[in-house]
Amino acid sequence: MTRTLDVAALVAGARRGDPRSVGRMISIVEDGSPQLRALMAALAAGGTPGPARGSRAHVIGLTGSPGVGKSTTTSALVRAYREAGARVGVLAVDPSSPFSGGALLGDRIRMQEHATDPEVFIRSMASRGHLGGLASATPQAIRVLEAAGCDPILVETVGVGQSEVEIAGESDTTVVLLAPGMGDGIQAAKAGILEVGDLFVVNKADRDGADQTARELRHMISLGGSPQPGAWQPPVLKSVASRGEGIDGVMKALAEHHAWLEQSGTGALRRRQRARTEIQGLALAVLQARFGDLGSGGTLDSLAADVAEGRLDAFTAADRIVAEVAG
Amino acid sequence: MTRTLDVAALVAGARRGDPRSVGRMISIVEDGSPQLRALMAALAAGGTPGPARGSRAHVIGLTGSPGVGKSTTTSALVRAYREAGARVGVLAVDPSSPFSGGALLGDRIRMQEHATDPEVFIRSMASRGHLGGLASATPQAIRVLEAAGCDPILVETVGVGQSEVEIAGESDTTVVLLAPGMGDGIQAAKAGILEVGDLFVVNKADRDGADQTARELRHMISLGGSPQPGAWQPPVLKSVASRGEGIDGVMKALAEHHAWLEQSGTGALRRRQRARTEIQGLALAVLQARFGDLGSGGTLDSLAADVAEGRLDAFTAADRIVAEVAG
Repeated sequence: MTRTLDVAALVAGARRGDPRSVGRMISIVEDGSPQLRALMAALAAGGTPGPARGSRAHVIGLTGSPGVGKSTTTSALVRAYREAGARVGVLAVDPSSPFSGGALLGDRIRMQEHATDPEVFIRSMASRGHLGGLASATPQAIRVLEAAGCDPILVETVGVGQSEVEIAGESDTTVVLLAPGMGDGIQAAKAGILEVGDLFVVNKADRDGADQTARELRHMISLGGSPQPGAWQPPVLKSVASRGEGIDGVMKALAEHHAWLEQSGTGALRRRQRARTEIQGLALAVLQARFGDLGSGGTLDSLAADVAEGRLDAFTAADRIVAEVAG
Repeated sequence: MTRTLDVAALVAGARRGDPRSVGRMISIVEDGSPQLRALMAALAAGGTPGPARGSRAHVIGLTGSPGVGKSTTTSALVRAYREAGARVGVLAVDPSSPFSGGALLGDRIRMQEHATDPEVFIRSMASRGHLGGLASATPQAIRVLEAAGCDPILVETVGVGQSEVEIAGESDTTVVLLAPGMGDGIQAAKAGILEVGDLFVVNKADRDGADQTARELRHMISLGGSPQPGAWQPPVLKSVASRGEGIDGVMKALAEHHAWLEQSGTGALRRRQRARTEIQGLALAVLQARFGDLGSGGTLDSLAADVAEGRLDAFTAADRIVAEVAG
């Protein structure tokens, strides 16, 4: 009973915009606490969360290699959205550390200017140990910030490579940041972020080579072929986030992309696709827990011994496990 | 029938050490071809593969940040094992590229000296699209090389971060390579590779700062506490792989670790743990395919719409999917 009451009180607190309630809810998400399930059910039972206009918050992912100015850009965007009167959520996700745990907080210093603003909710989050990793922790944390009335929600990834692509899957709009002369063009192609970027920003554009980097990017994007009528054509912008230059342009492009998402129906499609991924991740986690139970009973252990000693192939062993778990 | 004959012929070819048979088998693994299941069953049915002494090949993982000299070190080790009369397998795995596909072949140039040696089997492999990713493709490819009589098998990871930790799980012995003055100490702690390294090598030891890097590493390892009696204490060695310096020491440490693995029973434990992971990965893939079937039938789609619109929480949706799939 106490537990149920706690969750209800937390949700009520978050809906009032109480930062401590929001903080505790995100801790529950991050730790995968036993209350997580009740919390998510309570948030869903509360109906469409978020601002009064009845739609979901605009979730904006920011990604890019270390050193391109992700935190500075995030901070500049927070400032701009605050000036426009919005309540803003910021999630900084560090998916890179499977063992050590704990999000990298060094960069967060740059967000200090917003730390005492009651209309800005900032949270660093590691995905260590979370079932399904980023794929389930991030949407849960986003739901908490939505319930607290945050719109937009900025999701900043700390890390490189595949995690960038993964985080892009969690956002309505993905902003890919680059800096001049970092060989980023090739890196971008390699990591697959060209395919996931809705908006490209060459930050630190006061440095040499910014125009060339922008040109290369536009060229690489154009290699993807001419856009279909009504399709979104990712713009390539320039900024100097540390001086606030170009942020107006980024804000304008973000608003345009958001409008396009709603108008074209792509936003609803992406939300459904994200929900599919999340449901599958959780369902697999449930089934994986059942494998663990089989393991303690000895079935998985004895099959593993057979495979390890070369007496059985892993496919046949997997079939037997599936038959025990799922009939 | 033809397909069965093909697989049998391939396995026989591999056991003779025919490089074309080995190459085709690894392509089957990499592509997840329909013949993969039959191939793995045939390899298991053939009994303990590998050299006549009846044990499994020594699987050695090499990992480290770009620029530390992974390919050069791998090449130097191949040379040393060849001089000792061994047949050597080399797998270069690139897990970093989810979209573009294809392993990075640039580095492979350094392996050219071994390209025409019939007793060296070299293969670059991407894990794109493979069900269960590295966790199942790598052990399958290792099994192919074992069947071809390779011992040792060197597995070199191209990439950074979590993939390094992942590849470590596939090896009997994990060699972590570092270079002086790259801030690698902190990176190592961050990526969790301190925990997975059985052997640390500071390569490019003719550069400034090699002794300091080795000292820092030993210090960080010692922070893990005093070793239990009989436990393995990871040595920290130095090398200049491009000139072959220090490779003797690495070979000696590899042999010592291999002997310790067999003598302590840790080797068998690790093989079983790997088999567990592999079986679970394949079983989850089977179940995930069933989710896909449900999706086309509409169940998953309608649950995803409910979750996306905030009418249902993802846990409850996942429970319903599990109930349909696994009763």
